[in-house]
Amino acid sequence: MSTPYTAPLREMSFALKELGGLDAVLAQSDGSELSADLVEPILEEAGRFASEVLAPLNAPGDREGCRWQDGAVRTPEGFAAAYASFCETGWHGMPAEVELGGQGMPTLLSTAVLEMWKSANHAFSLCQMLTLGAVEAIRRHATPELQARYLPAMVAGRWTGTMNITEPQAGSDLSAIRSRAVPEGEHYRITGTKIFITWGEHDLAENIVHLVLARLPDAPPGVKGLSLFLCPKVLVNADGSLGARNDLVCASIEHKLGIHACSTAVMAFGEQGGATGWLVGAPHEGLACMFTMMNHARLNVGLEGLALSERAYQQARAYALDRVQGRGVGLGPDGPRTIIGHPDVRRMLMAMKSRVEAMRGLAYYTAGRMDRAHGHPDAAQRAEAQALVDLLTPIVKAWCTEQAQGITALGVQVHGGMGFIEETGAAQHQRDARITTIYEGTTGIQANDLLNRKLVRDGGATLGRLLREVQDEARGLAGHGDATLRAIGDALLRAAASLEAATAHLLVRHAATPRESFAGAVPYLMLCGTVLGGWLLARGAEAAVTQLASGSGDTDFLAAKRSTAWHYAMNVLPEAAGLGEIVCHGAASVLALDDAQF
Amino acid sequence: MSTPYTAPLREMSFALKELGGLDAVLAQSDGSELSADLVEPILEEAGRFASEVLAPLNAPGDREGCRWQDGAVRTPEGFAAAYASFCETGWHGMPAEVELGGQGMPTLLSTAVLEMWKSANHAFSLCQMLTLGAVEAIRRHATPELQARYLPAMVAGRWTGTMNITEPQAGSDLSAIRSRAVPEGEHYRITGTKIFITWGEHDLAENIVHLVLARLPDAPPGVKGLSLFLCPKVLVNADGSLGARNDLVCASIEHKLGIHACSTAVMAFGEQGGATGWLVGAPHEGLACMFTMMNHARLNVGLEGLALSERAYQQARAYALDRVQGRGVGLGPDGPRTIIGHPDVRRMLMAMKSRVEAMRGLAYYTAGRMDRAHGHPDAAQRAEAQALVDLLTPIVKAWCTEQAQGITALGVQVHGGMGFIEETGAAQHQRDARITTIYEGTTGIQANDLLNRKLVRDGGATLGRLLREVQDEARGLAGHGDATLRAIGDALLRAAASLEAATAHLLVRHAATPRESFAGAVPYLMLCGTVLGGWLLARGAEAAVTQLASGSGDTDFLAAKRSTAWHYAMNVLPEAAGLGEIVCHGAASVLALDDAQF
Repeated sequence: MSTPYTAPLREMSFALKELGGLDAVLAQSDGSELSADLVEPILEEAGRFASEVLAPLNAPGDREGCRWQDGAVRTPEGFAAAYASFCETGWHGMPAEVELGGQGMPTLLSTAVLEMWKSANHAFSLCQMLTLGAVEAIRRHATPELQARYLPAMVAGRWTGTMNITEPQAGSDLSAIRSRAVPEGEHYRITGTKIFITWGEHDLAENIVHLVLARLPDAPPGVKGLSLFLCPKVLVNADGSLGARNDLVCASIEHKLGIHACSTAVMAFGEQGGATGWLVGAPHEGLACMFTMMNHARLNVGLEGLALSERAYQQARAYALDRVQGRGVGLGPDGPRTIIGHPDVRRMLMAMKSRVEAMRGLAYYTAGRMDRAHGHPDAAQRAEAQALVDLLTPIVKAWCTEQAQGITALGVQVHGGMGFIEETGAAQHQRDARITTIYEGTTGIQANDLLNRKLVRDGGATLGRLLREVQDEARGLAGHGDATLRAIGDALLRAAASLEAATAHLLVRHAATPRESFAGAVPYLMLCGTVLGGWLLARGAEAAVTQLASGSGDTDFLAAKRSTAWHYAMNVLPEAAGLGEIVCHGAASVLALDDAQF
Repeated sequence: MSTPYTAPLREMSFALKELGGLDAVLAQSDGSELSADLVEPILEEAGRFASEVLAPLNAPGDREGCRWQDGAVRTPEGFAAAYASFCETGWHGMPAEVELGGQGMPTLLSTAVLEMWKSANHAFSLCQMLTLGAVEAIRRHATPELQARYLPAMVAGRWTGTMNITEPQAGSDLSAIRSRAVPEGEHYRITGTKIFITWGEHDLAENIVHLVLARLPDAPPGVKGLSLFLCPKVLVNADGSLGARNDLVCASIEHKLGIHACSTAVMAFGEQGGATGWLVGAPHEGLACMFTMMNHARLNVGLEGLALSERAYQQARAYALDRVQGRGVGLGPDGPRTIIGHPDVRRMLMAMKSRVEAMRGLAYYTAGRMDRAHGHPDAAQRAEAQALVDLLTPIVKAWCTEQAQGITALGVQVHGGMGFIEETGAAQHQRDARITTIYEGTTGIQANDLLNRKLVRDGGATLGRLLREVQDEARGLAGHGDATLRAIGDALLRAAASLEAATAHLLVRHAATPRESFAGAVPYLMLCGTVLGGWLLARGAEAAVTQLASGSGDTDFLAAKRSTAWHYAMNVLPEAAGLGEIVCHGAASVLALDDAQF
């Protein structure tokens, strides 16, 4: 049994326009021919591909998984054909620049399209994500020769890309990386073992381009001694044709909780003397080059949290509308007999729906600011937008993925006992989502990044600007003519006050008691996400009320926008006060025990 | 790789004495020979069996799972031998009455022992739980002849028991049950299909005694037309020897997210004309008979939430103390390099530890009240204790199992990428825990029971008495000489005020707007659990401070008790205010959408 997926086009269009700032993004478009009337057809086409080609492979791919034999990995049935079609139709290279063979689509629009791939088939979608991340790192940091030799095939999807960072002793702590690179003429000999390499080996493409963090012989210790190398699985001749196999091999793949259809490889470099690699970027600056990939990947992983939650919501909604199991309390004899009539089932569905929309709001808002940071004609606007993107990146990554844990679990819960049976498909979404709070930097790493590099480093300036915007809008709503919007505005004001207090607390105390402020970093990040998600839902509700008043648009849909924001304001924003208290008063007790007392 | 488990004997003894009221339970002991100085040896012996026999089979059992072939089920390697040893050593029958061949242990003490089985091997432990539940139903409701024929072998574990309730169309809604029973002489012919039958078929014992809900020909519709029948897998001769196979078969077993080592069977009754069954209890009163099993099972499933959380905590703690991965911020060059030095890792471990202890407090407190309800010499005390147990049963069941979702997920998170790899074992605890919020009545069912039957029905009298006790103790702590206890008392007073307000709201509004109050039932149950868990931790902290002041006991352990309660007060109790707001103000928006707007 494979559960269907339908791209939520109406929701996406609304979020693109009202929260992502699509019109402004299209208006600043720099010579690319994308006109506004192409947006809907692109989304519809992508939705069709996601529903018809990728989604049906999701459950079978989970069941079959990848299989390793003698260094080769066989992907589940149907994946190779789907991948070939994905590349042929141009979806693979779509987000990449036009000069590289892509379609130069704004990040905002490609974010909506990527959401679809991730909802339809998370495991499949990771291959494109990794490849385009590698494309970005090569485009920015590699020599023109390397770019010319590798990028066209990678953008087209004929060759895929990977990030080789983690080693058995070096996970979150990259300073412990031991892989070595020794110069030999124009290239290097790479040796070492890398683990957790997503799509590190497979049968979808004829070559795999590994980007590998390793140390040169004269490298200083720590993260400042890491350099980045390009190591193809198959060496590439000067004319672009494929040559001999490189000295690297997939030693095994992991048996994982989820994303079974993508290989998570242990890669052994240089067992025959050294894999041939080329330096990308300057020596000892590998970490900065890698972060080019990483920051983009972090936003995309946040998007996975949204996408898996959306898929879980669709499945739970379909089950609740179909499953007959007693009439809900307080419904008359003619009331529906499906479980959506039960107040607690509605509670679960509303919790899923309103959080999904809040996540989509935050992800698309951030994507829209990325376009502004790249393409706005005014430099000051670009800089301000970039600061905002930097601030929001860890929040989108960690908040959306943590939300996804609870939402996909609710998806199982709505199914009752059937949710625990693997054939139902609900459990897969929860298993697949489990990795998203871990890879590309755990939730704890994101929270440290938010606190240390994004909040404290600029003295709270960027967060303060954003918070004032939230508070101004909340005050406006609190005085609105619509009673529901007033209730939303009041709730948002209270939640924003908690964020303001927690922020002030951390800024004052961080220097003196850094261990305490880091102990409160994750609750602080969750507080930021909770408030910002509520703000964007409130913004959407106000737009919906305006459209309702003007008599335009789909009345049911717009009224639901208002109700959903109201739900979030009354059922999610109340968590903000508690989170604020935890940040301000909870940390000392977190650190109260000795190691031996645990 | 199989992860070790060590029974937390010091924690258990503390909770038994200070929160479960062990001394009072032993003092009221009615003729059974259990003396206080046997308690520790029993716990130690049980702990050894759990660690040495059951825990090592947990991960291999998960990997191998149960296998079905031609109606028979083969359990994983080692399970049959462990089960035989479990029965021979008397652990199987230990909680049962002495006159049945058990050891008549107080529920409080057997609760601690059952916690160990569940921590060590959740799947294995379910077999004993189901069997003893069936024993209880037969002992209370079946004829003396049936009791004599079945109980001795069941208490000894030579035969196991099951509950056959669910059918494909009848999950939470038992009124939809269709299985039929037709009288034939002194027995009945049973036909129908039952699903989700835990340990419904296996190779551990020579017979399986199924208790089956079915309808007599003259049964009224709905739940008042259900009768309970005893249907053995193998018919039992008058002399107690085994006869022919009954007309019932395991048609298949489910492929589940977790508890792979126990079979979850589809049972087909009467495919050859009708399984032979005997009526248990009066006709049409099967539901009441079944609830005898169910209420006990609900407390035991709550205990599973605690037990799996404890196991996950032990594993995460061991990893955090062992894994070297960068030195924690603010630690000097001589500080530990293991990840427990990182504030965020400590945050996760403290969140696990303090919630585990709160859950243990609530579970043991309830178990102690069960003993009082059964054995207190004063009838009024017995009645009051029983009312408390009835109130607390859905809270223990649903709150502990919902807590377990987050705690076992944190267990994975502490492991970083390794947590997602199945060999690590952390993911199994999360997968196994996933069923606990579903079976024996979902969280939503428990919340409805709490609201409707336990709160509203007595006008809030029982909850009110308990809440006043909480508030009195909190006020006492708020004026204590110990500053940490004062902080705990203040936090508990605030949280209790939220519970008081939410309770008043529901009592006032339930009759007029039942759909709204049911929409707030789960948040209300979580609020109850949060406050009561904090209360019992606070009570433990006060006892620890008293012992510290007297100079008795283990200083480090007692100081940790205070710190852990403080952590909960500062990091978990702040959630209460938000939950209270959601109960009082959130429900209308939960119900705001039409079905079509989802």
